[in-house]
Formats: sequence, C-alpha cells, structure tokens
Amino acid sequence: MHQASLTIDPSFRIAEVDPRVYGSFVEHMGRCVYTGIYEPGHDSADAHGFRGDVADLVRELGTPVLRYPGGNFVSGYTWEDGIGPRDRRPTRLDLAWRSLETNQVGVDEFATWSRGVGSEPIMAVNLGTRGVDAARNLVEYANHPGGTRWSDLRRSNGFADPHGIKLWCLGNEMDGPWQIGHKTALEYARLAAETAKAMRRVDPSIELVACGSSHSRMPTFGTWEETVLRETYDLVDYISLHSYYEQRGDDRGSFLASAVNLDRFIEAVIATCDHARGVGRHSKRINLSVDEWNVWYQSRFVGEDNLEWEQTPRLIEDEYSVVDAVVVGSLMISLLKHADRVKIACLAQLVNVIAPIRSEPGGPAWRQTSFHPFALTSRHGRGTVLRVEPTGPLYDTAWLGEVPVVDATAVYDEEAGGVTLFAVNRDQREPVALDVDLRSLPGLTVAEHVALFDADPEATNTAERPDRVTPTKQPDVKVADGHLTAALPPLSWNMFRIG
Amino acid sequence: MHQASLTIDPSFRIAEVDPRVYGSFVEHMGRCVYTGIYEPGHDSADAHGFRGDVADLVRELGTPVLRYPGGNFVSGYTWEDGIGPRDRRPTRLDLAWRSLETNQVGVDEFATWSRGVGSEPIMAVNLGTRGVDAARNLVEYANHPGGTRWSDLRRSNGFADPHGIKLWCLGNEMDGPWQIGHKTALEYARLAAETAKAMRRVDPSIELVACGSSHSRMPTFGTWEETVLRETYDLVDYISLHSYYEQRGDDRGSFLASAVNLDRFIEAVIATCDHARGVGRHSKRINLSVDEWNVWYQSRFVGEDNLEWEQTPRLIEDEYSVVDAVVVGSLMISLLKHADRVKIACLAQLVNVIAPIRSEPGGPAWRQTSFHPFALTSRHGRGTVLRVEPTGPLYDTAWLGEVPVVDATAVYDEEAGGVTLFAVNRDQREPVALDVDLRSLPGLTVAEHVALFDADPEATNTAERPDRVTPTKQPDVKVADGHLTAALPPLSWNMFRIG
Amino acid sequence: MHQASLTIDPSFRIAEVDPRVYGSFVEHMGRCVYTGIYEPGHDSADAHGFRGDVADLVRELGTPVLRYPGGNFVSGYTWEDGIGPRDRRPTRLDLAWRSLETNQVGVDEFATWSRGVGSEPIMAVNLGTRGVDAARNLVEYANHPGGTRWSDLRRSNGFADPHGIKLWCLGNEMDGPWQIGHKTALEYARLAAETAKAMRRVDPSIELVACGSSHSRMPTFGTWEETVLRETYDLVDYISLHSYYEQRGDDRGSFLASAVNLDRFIEAVIATCDHARGVGRHSKRINLSVDEWNVWYQSRFVGEDNLEWEQTPRLIEDEYSVVDAVVVGSLMISLLKHADRVKIACLAQLVNVIAPIRSEPGGPAWRQTSFHPFALTSRHGRGTVLRVEPTGPLYDTAWLGEVPVVDATAVYDEEAGGVTLFAVNRDQREPVALDVDLRSLPGLTVAEHVALFDADPEATNTAERPDRVTPTKQPDVKVADGHLTAALPPLSWNMFRIG
Repeated sequence: MHQASLTIDPSFRIAEVDPRVYGSFVEHMGRCVYTGIYEPGHDSADAHGFRGDVADLVRELGTPVLRYPGGNFVSGYTWEDGIGPRDRRPTRLDLAWRSLETNQVGVDEFATWSRGVGSEPIMAVNLGTRGVDAARNLVEYANHPGGTRWSDLRRSNGFADPHGIKLWCLGNEMDGPWQIGHKTALEYARLAAETAKAMRRVDPSIELVACGSSHSRMPTFGTWEETVLRETYDLVDYISLHSYYEQRGDDRGSFLASAVNLDRFIEAVIATCDHARGVGRHSKRINLSVDEWNVWYQSRFVGEDNLEWEQTPRLIEDEYSVVDAVVVGSLMISLLKHADRVKIACLAQLVNVIAPIRSEPGGPAWRQTSFHPFALTSRHGRGTVLRVEPTGPLYDTAWLGEVPVVDATAVYDEEAGGVTLFAVNRDQREPVALDVDLRSLPGLTVAEHVALFDADPEATNTAERPDRVTPTKQPDVKVADGHLTAALPPLSWNMFRIG
Repeated sequence: MHQASLTIDPSFRIAEVDPRVYGSFVEHMGRCVYTGIYEPGHDSADAHGFRGDVADLVRELGTPVLRYPGGNFVSGYTWEDGIGPRDRRPTRLDLAWRSLETNQVGVDEFATWSRGVGSEPIMAVNLGTRGVDAARNLVEYANHPGGTRWSDLRRSNGFADPHGIKLWCLGNEMDGPWQIGHKTALEYARLAAETAKAMRRVDPSIELVACGSSHSRMPTFGTWEETVLRETYDLVDYISLHSYYEQRGDDRGSFLASAVNLDRFIEAVIATCDHARGVGRHSKRINLSVDEWNVWYQSRFVGEDNLEWEQTPRLIEDEYSVVDAVVVGSLMISLLKHADRVKIACLAQLVNVIAPIRSEPGGPAWRQTSFHPFALTSRHGRGTVLRVEPTGPLYDTAWLGEVPVVDATAVYDEEAGGVTLFAVNRDQREPVALDVDLRSLPGLTVAEHVALFDADPEATNTAERPDRVTPTKQPDVKVADGHLTAALPPLSWNMFRIG
Repeated sequence: MHQASLTIDPSFRIAEVDPRVYGSFVEHMGRCVYTGIYEPGHDSADAHGFRGDVADLVRELGTPVLRYPGGNFVSGYTWEDGIGPRDRRPTRLDLAWRSLETNQVGVDEFATWSRGVGSEPIMAVNLGTRGVDAARNLVEYANHPGGTRWSDLRRSNGFADPHGIKLWCLGNEMDGPWQIGHKTALEYARLAAETAKAMRRVDPSIELVACGSSHSRMPTFGTWEETVLRETYDLVDYISLHSYYEQRGDDRGSFLASAVNLDRFIEAVIATCDHARGVGRHSKRINLSVDEWNVWYQSRFVGEDNLEWEQTPRLIEDEYSVVDAVVVGSLMISLLKHADRVKIACLAQLVNVIAPIRSEPGGPAWRQTSFHPFALTSRHGRGTVLRVEPTGPLYDTAWLGEVPVVDATAVYDEEAGGVTLFAVNRDQREPVALDVDLRSLPGLTVAEHVALFDADPEATNTAERPDRVTPTKQPDVKVADGHLTAALPPLSWNMFRIG
C-alpha cells in the first residue's frame, strides 16, 4: 500500500472558487439540443418543449453557467434564424457538423431555459462568417431594455425583459483550420478587438472571452495568445483554452495523468497572459476560461467532413467508464488548483454529446459515470481553495514522464468552517494510505469519505443500468489527533467532507 | 505698444481661396441635428421640420459646404435606416456617442436642407462596420438619375432628382482606437482604395477624401498618411486632418498660439503628400481637407464610454469666450495662409455641439462669439490669398516655444480691386501698432477696421445676452502715403477692408 | 518551300484530353447574354427567351463547359438578384463594365440553358464585394437537393432538381487593380481558402479553381500564385491563368507566334504549382484552368472607366480575320500539348463579346473565322495527346525571339484507332512540306486534310457574308510507306484526320 500525505491549513490560500468553473456547454450539435434538452413530444416536456427529466438532472449536476450555441457551430451561425415565430424559422445547413439545423431553439429559448435550470447563459458570437455588426446587434437584442430596433424585436417576440447575458465569447476556436472562417492570429485579434469594442459600447457591463488555443498541441499555441492579447488586452477579460483527453491504445497510466497535462497547459497560458501584461504595461490581469474540457474519444469520430446531412444525428455520444469518471474528477482538481486564474470552465457538453447526461428520444435520461464527480465537486467545492501540497509516490508514464500517484485539492468553507478534500488515486492496483494534517483547523473532528471506483474499471452506466456506477460511502475514514487517515482505493476518485 | 508691419503686394500670391475652406460639419451627435437644425415642433420650423431661425443663422454664417453625417457616428451608421417613410425608420443605438438615433433625418432630408441654406453636402461613408457594397449603393442612391434599384428607391421616396453630392469622405478618423471598426493603416488603406474605386465607377464626377490623422499627436501620425497615400494615391483627391484646441490650465498664451500648431500640422501633412507623390512617381498633387477643426474643451468631456443611452443628449455644448473666438479667427488665418493646399475645411460642428450657433428646444437660436470671425472671414475672404510676411515681436509659450504676437493674412479681390486683411494680436495686455505697406496697390486709399475683443476676455454670448460679444468698428485706421496704420487691441481678432 | 517533320507514336503520350479544355465563357457583358444567347422577342427564341439560332451554333461549336457569369462582372454581382420572378428582379449598376444589368438571366436560367446546349455550367462566386456567406449560400441554392432555406427557395422558383454545378471559380482576376474589390495575394489567398472550405462543406463533390494571374505581364505574376497556393493548396483543385493576344502594329510575325507565349506562361505556372507542392510536402497536384483565352484587340477598347451607363451596349465585338483564326487554332495546339496539366480552358467569350459566334438583335447569327478551328478541334481532338516533336525551320520575332514556323499536336483515339493531327504554318509567304512518320501505327493508311487560310489574310465573316472564310479540304495529302506527306499553305491552320 502506498503512503501519501498532505496538509490543510487555511493560511495557504489559492483563491476563492469562481462558481463558473462548474459550467457546461450546450452546442447545436448532434443531440445536445434536440432530443437532449429539448424534445416537445416527450412525456416530461414542459410547455416550451424542454424535457423535464433532463432539466432535473441538469439542476442536480449543478452548472452555474452554460455556454451556447457553440463551439464550431457558431462560426457559421446566423442568430436571427433562431428568433421569432418557430414556423417561420429557416432550416439551415450547419457546415460545422454537416447537419440540418431547424432553429427551433434560439437565444430566447435558451436563455430562458438556462435560467430555469439555475444557469447563467454564456453566449458566443459568430466571428467566422460574420463580424462587428451581427455581434453588436445580438448584444442589443439580448441585453438592451427596449426602444430600439433589435430590443423591440425581442420584445415583440415575447421577451419583454432583456436576457442580461453577462459573459460573451468572441468566436470559437478561431485558431483551428477546421473552423468555418478560420483566422490567422492577427486577423482574429483585430476582428476580436473591434467586435469587443462595439459590444461593450452596447452594454458596458458585459465580460468578454477571447479565443486562445484549441488545444496545447496547436502549432500556433503560445504565439496565437501573444498576438491576440497584444491587440485586445484592454478590451477583453478572459482568454480561452480547450482541452480534451482520451486513452490511447492500452496506455491507461498516461490517460489517468491527463490532469498533469492540463496543469501544464493552464500554467503556460497564465505565463503568456502575464508576459503580455508586462510587455504592454497593463495593470489588470487576464484570467482563463477553460470553456471546453472533457474526456472525448476523438479517435472514434469520423470527422466532420465525413458526415451526411441529417437532423439531430447521433454524434460522439461517448459512453464513459469508471476510468473516464476518475479522469474527469482529476481534471476538476486541476481546475480548482488554479482557482486564482481559472475563473470559468465548461464541461463539454451537457447532454448526449460527450456529456455527463444522456437521454433517449421518447425514452429515459440518465447519469453517466462522469456525472458523479462533477456534481459532487460542484455542490461541495464552494469556498476558498487551499494549497495542500500532497506528497507521495510517483509513477512513470509514456506521455508525461513521472507523475504523482495522488493528486488532491481542498476547498475551505469559511462560513460553515468545514473543508472538502478531493483526491484521486491513479494507481490501478494498489490503494493509498492517506494522511491529512488538520492541526491548523482543530475544530474539524469528523469526516465522510465518498469514493468512485469499481472492480471493473470499464463499467459504464446505460439506459438499462443507469446506476451501475455510483459513488459509495467508505467506512474506513478516521479523524484523530489533528490527522485524518483513510484509504484511497486503486483507480479511484474521492471526496472527504470534513466538519 | 508693440510695432508690427507687413506688405500687401499682388505679385506675391499663394492661391485662390477655395470657398470650401469655409465649410462646417453636421454630425448626428448630441443636439446638432435634433433641436439643432431640425425641430418639427418649433415655432420657426418649415414644412419639413427644419428650424427657420437656425437656417437663417447658417446662411449668415456662410458655409459653402457641410460635412455629414459624422464624425464617429458614421462608423456604425446604416444609411438605409434614414430613408423612406419616417414612421418606419428604426431607432438605433449609436455606439459612437452612446445615444439613441431615431433616423428622422437622413441623406435625403439633409441634402435638401443643405442646399436650402446655400451649402453643398459633403457625405461620409461608413468604413467602420461596412465596406464597398454599402458605399457604392449610397452613391447610386444619392447621385444616379434613375432606372436602377437604388436610384429608383430614392425617386420613390420623393426625390426625383439626384442629390448630386460631389465630395465624399472615405470614413472618419479610422486611425483612432476609439473608432467603431478602427483600422490599422494598411487595413484602412486597402479598404479605402477598393471603396473609392467602386464609388468612382458609379459616379466618376465625385471627389474623395481619404482619412489622415485624427490629430497631430496620434502615435501613427505620418506613417498612417504614408501608408494610406501609397495604396490610394490615384484613387483619392484629398487627405484629411482633424485638429481641436483648448486652453490647458491657465496657459492662455499657449492656447492663443494654437494656429502655429495648425500651421505645423498642415505643413507636415503637405510634406507627406509630396513625399508620396515623389516616391510613387505621380504627377497629380493630393490636397488637404481639414474637415474637423475648432476650439473644443475635450478635457471637460466625460468620454463616450461614460454616456447613458438618451435621445438628443446635451453633449459638448461648449460656450465660447472672446479668447476662443480670437483663436478661431486665428485658425482661419492659418487655413488661408495654406490656400495652395488646403482646399476644404469644416468648422466642427454647426449647431450646439462645439458650434458657432446655439439653439434651445422650443427657444431661441443665437450666435456664439466664434460665429463672428468665422462669418466675416467667410463673407470677405474670397479671392486670392497674398503672402504678407508680417514682422513683429515674439513671445514665449510653454507649448510651442517662441511664437509671433501678430499673425495675419490678406485676400485680394482682383475684380473689385480691394483687399481684406485679417490679423490677430495675441498679446493679452499690449496693443500693436500695425503698419501695412500698400505701395504696390496705389488705388487703395480707404479702410474699415473691425475688431473682436473685450475688456473681459472670458465674456460669452448666451440665450439671455446673445449679443454680449460682437465685433466693433475701430475708429483709428488711416491710409496715407501708401501705408495703412492702425492699432490692434490686446487679445483681438481684426479685419481690415481696404478699398 | 520549307520542310518539316514529326512522328506519331502512341508510346509517347502526354495525357488524355480533358474535354473541358474546349470550354467557353458567358459573361454578363455587352451583348453576350442579352441579344446574344438570350433574346425573348427573337424569331428563333424558345419558350424561355433563348435564341434557337445561337443555341444551334453553340452546339456545333462544341463547348462541354461554360463559365458564368463573369469575368469582372462577378466581382460586384449579387446572385440573389438573378433568381425568382423576373418582373421583381432589380436593375443594377454593373460597375465592371459600367452597364445596366436587368438580371433577366440568372443562375437558374443559365444552368438550364447550358445543359440544353450540351454544356456543364462552371459558376464563379463573387470574392470582390462578398465572401464566405454569399458563396456558401449559392452552392446550397444551386446544388443542395432541398429541405433547407436556399435549396427550398430554388425549388419554389421552379427548379425542383439541383443544378449539380460541379466546377466553381473562387472569384475572377483578383490580382487585377481594375477588379472591384481587388485583393493583395495574401488577402485573396485567405479569403479563397475560407470560402473554399465552406463551399466544400456544403457540397464535397465540387471542384474549385483559385485565381492565378490575369496575364503573364502582371507585376505580381508568380509571387501571386505562390502565396495563393501556399494558403489554399489542400482546398483547391486548379489555378487559373488568363491570356489574350492581339497583333500590335504591323508585327504579324510576333502575333502568329502567340502560342509560344502561352506555352511559356503555362509552363511557368506549372513550375509554381510543383514548387508549392514540394515546399508544402503535398502529394496531390494542382492543375491548370486557362479559363479566359482568345485573340482580343484590347488596344481598341476604350476602357471600362470611359463607358456610359447603357443596357446591352456593344462592347468589344471584335471581328476576327483569317490571321486571328490561325492564332486561335495554334493556341488550341498549345493547350493540347499541355493536356497533362491543363484540364480546363475557356474561349472568352461565347457570343458577340470577342466571340466565335456573332448575332444581331432581331437578326441572324453567324460563325466568325475563329469558330472553325475551335469547333473542329473540339469535335476531333478527343482521346490521348501524343508527343509529336515537330522539327522544321525557325523565324525571328521581335516579341519572342526565334520561334518555330510549324507547331503541331496529335490526338490519338485509341478506341477507333485513328489519329487527328493539328498543325499551323506561321510563315506568311511560303508553304511547308510536312512529313509525318506513322510507322508505329501501321494501320493508318488514309488521311483527310482540312485547312483554314485565305489569299486575303484579313478576310472576315460578316452578317452579309457569314461564310466568306471557312476551312477547305486539301487534295494533296498522301499516306504511303508509313509516312504522311502534305503541304501546309502559308499562314494556315490545318487538321489531318488519319485512319
């Protein structure tokens, strides 16, 4: 059995958790919207056609923000197609996913539904085929009270109150050659700057996310961010990064260490932001929006060029295993460890499309394995992230070299006085005996230990067995003499509620 | 008492005055248009809703050309919003001045009104959010006789005859980061070139003004013009410069010397034009359009980002003092001294917004102090500018170093044989004894001297006391032995009509 | 009499002829469309208003593809103007040719008519004033079966079946400063790349032509292609080149050698393509589209800036002489000799505008001199081009130095076993005794010789004498002992059908 230890001391703070790191993402792609959140004929559908069963699961998942409507989709999107009487909305060729888009859900419906499930909408504007004009009009439509062309159109469409969308993404993955209207760094930087300026003039209360790199292996990674920040520093608040992970071949050890890669990616982007801050003599800091992240088996995807025109095709409906869930949990630990700079993160996506929630048309909705670590972290990971400095064994990976077996972070709830500790054991065979030094918080005397693991690490949840994999309470945790001791099962994600 | 002298000799000509240097500027900003030139409910309003009292003052001011509709406003303007039935025109968010624009006045109304007050309209096209297509359509709408989509639309809107707008501005202050759709020099140069080409194909009789620098302290000043002229030389006729002046703190001495700064600015732009001419092996010369200039207390302006959405807000309604009027008069002397290259200049703006004319909604209209030197120069400054080479004392300024106390220019009316001399005395305490050598024009034997000055140099005209400050006839002028002698009061603007 | 010889041996193949090298070009210019292919009131007009007499001549001319609708015209074209009920289509100012465009013919009519005369339409998209969005919408309108906004609009306009347009041009002559919306190489390359990507996503079966140089004397020739191919290599299939020829002064010798210039131009573009292939580590090859070529007396054209607004003006209705026809025939030999890389070529244009077919409004249609070599080459030049390596005398030209008197190419019809040989004699006075080695094809025993020449090389065909110049059968050809012998008349184009 491995030995590992860490220290929980409220003097060593990283930052308050921004609840928006528990965001998710709804793209007009595959079955995320249609037969995902929205299915008028479904038994559970509300008056607006949105599924009640899915909405309940979204509330349980706990996503304070939801990014919309893409993703690659947005780079060819005409937002005006999705407003007004539904029977007059055009069906469009969505070139991103070569799908037929009926526009039955648009900004009005999404913003309303999103609030109904307890989530603030984050809206992305199209900087692929469109520019300043379409973006400023959308901000006016969404956020201006009334008395102007676009705000009055919203009102006449039945939405008297402005949607008050506070956070906006300046396009999506504009560094990617796959993107409709892909831009060079300078092309994008200039367009983003001018679009940002006009959007802010319409509503100075909004915050803006500039596109960073689509992944850390992009050939333009780093130089892209540098150019974008040079041209937009004063006009934006965040820069994005996207990161997806998957197991390659049978190298599960590398896959389990994905969060080490995310750590490095985040830290490199922070360095670029602070470099731009220095060079530009700026005082404000640019923070990070990891606005797409997840486990995604991209190697199983046929690629967008090979899709046939369909409405609501089944696209990348990855079924997640116990291993995937442990990786998702560990990626959340990485996000929390960077709470000082990562202010927004969006699990991509919310329903069906590489998602924690699955649903069948006319059928049930259920929680994938990854739902559980996400929901528990979102519910209990509120407060101040502490620097816990775990020590313990290392293991070797083909991808990332030596990595720690155990990763962990702790969130301190100053009001209630409790601490929640999240930890993963990446060892596939051996448990870890964990020792947590709690002497700085002598009031903490009891703990609950919940863990996600399984004898079959490839086990998944399905429509037939939706609760095959769930977190279970662990009996062995002890708090005594200012120390918590517990065993982390092999290949497990763990949460300790210490009070 | 200072001594100064100059020589009036018709052999030393600069150039014919282009009457367009007496232009002004009507922007959709604040109350320039609405409750300025246009106020349907006003007692004096004509059948089209334009104020008669203001129109009379505009005629008296004497502005052969009026630039329209911006200014920063034009960079987000959709000109089609301002045509057709007024009750169907949309209210728009004007992002330049964060104001609500009702579009009750548009190109048709403005062109018609402008001609009615004796002014040719100068039209600016939107190169901020729009490009070639919108610009060429506007030229077709305004200038094509009929038989095509846009010209027939004008006709069906009740304007059978084309407006025949001869002078067009390719955007406005595109070098300014504050501009909606701001461009780099090369971005602007390329867009201006292609837009110019298309506009000229629609109507080859038009003349075009390319954007130069928004002021001489712009970090891109000089390099901007060089790039723009390299890419557009054959396609444009003029390059613009804008220049506003204000007194900083109590340094009135520097402020009174503003025209020295304008001289230098104009001469630097001329140099860049002629450099581009040489490098590009061009034969034609590019001339200058100082299409925004005035005294403007920018330091008192809250900035466009701090404005609230309003219709017709009171924006920068600067009240001009005697000092300001003397500076305006001296800036006109600078323009005339460069009559060989400055062919267009627009006092910004015409009514209410840093303007020579003020009006109150439902109330009176009146002349600001600056109205007077402008109106007199415009009325009498027609003919050939002569090189007069004044000599006299200098004084030291914090801003511009040593500058002359007296500046002057003379305009020779060859037909009538008379000369009008304009002169300022920048000394705040001492008068100047002026000696003018007229021996080359022995026919000139009589002179009238009009001066603007006041015991209180901060005196202004207001609605209550609209004629508090006016020019007055000076009794002391003498013409004898081929010499005119007169005294220029301290801190004064002076005009001599010599016949 | 000169001596020349060549060898026909099926072992030395260049490539299969792509029938699209026999394409032509229909631009909305002058009288190519209106009173050219389309004239509702004409005696021969069909139910859709297209002239039957012209259609018959087009079928006889044999153009497997027709490029449409421009040309310079397309760079200001709004394709939506040309669809739907004709009485609601707007009249537009065409800025390319300063003409009034009534839009009575648009993509639906052209595609339908084109198929009716046996030609596949090639469609160009507007990359002058428009971009990705307009282009992708046009592909959807033209090629998508139905069920979407634009395809359903086509259906509601009466065209249930998609037009299935397979070949598309990404703009026209975008390197030319005369072009509306002219681009720098990089501006064009980036726009072409993103437009290509979106168009392909709509219909992955299409092929795309990127703009190369407008002629080989363009200052950007070579560097333009290099930049364009660097940015678009994977997204396009062909690069274009345009080339027009005319006799300058009385230097007919140079003019007759025009094909030598075309050879060099083609070979230079091939070199650039293969350079880009190497540098970019690509495996596919980019082929060539000579999508505008002809004899054009540009020196007689007043230039587009000097035209007056008219509907259907008589523009560049060049009347072709015997010399011109010989040059056209020899240019086709050049195209065939590069059959391995030249896959598309369009004789510009089809009717009236520098065209092989002429028509008069309400009057007859007839064949110009150049019609004949084109039609015969198109009809008989199908199969495999052989490398014939002619040897013979040279002559000196002021333009191109020493050039061969005789140029020739042969096309082998493997199925039928016959060979067609095309040859020109550029000598203006002497005939050429031609010896063709046929020993590798012992089955060839008979030959027919047709030649175009005239005692008056300036003779033309007119409405009054439409058959003044036609090819004639030559009696002197002999096949014996594996050799064909014949005489090529002075200044002649010749075809030998050998079976």
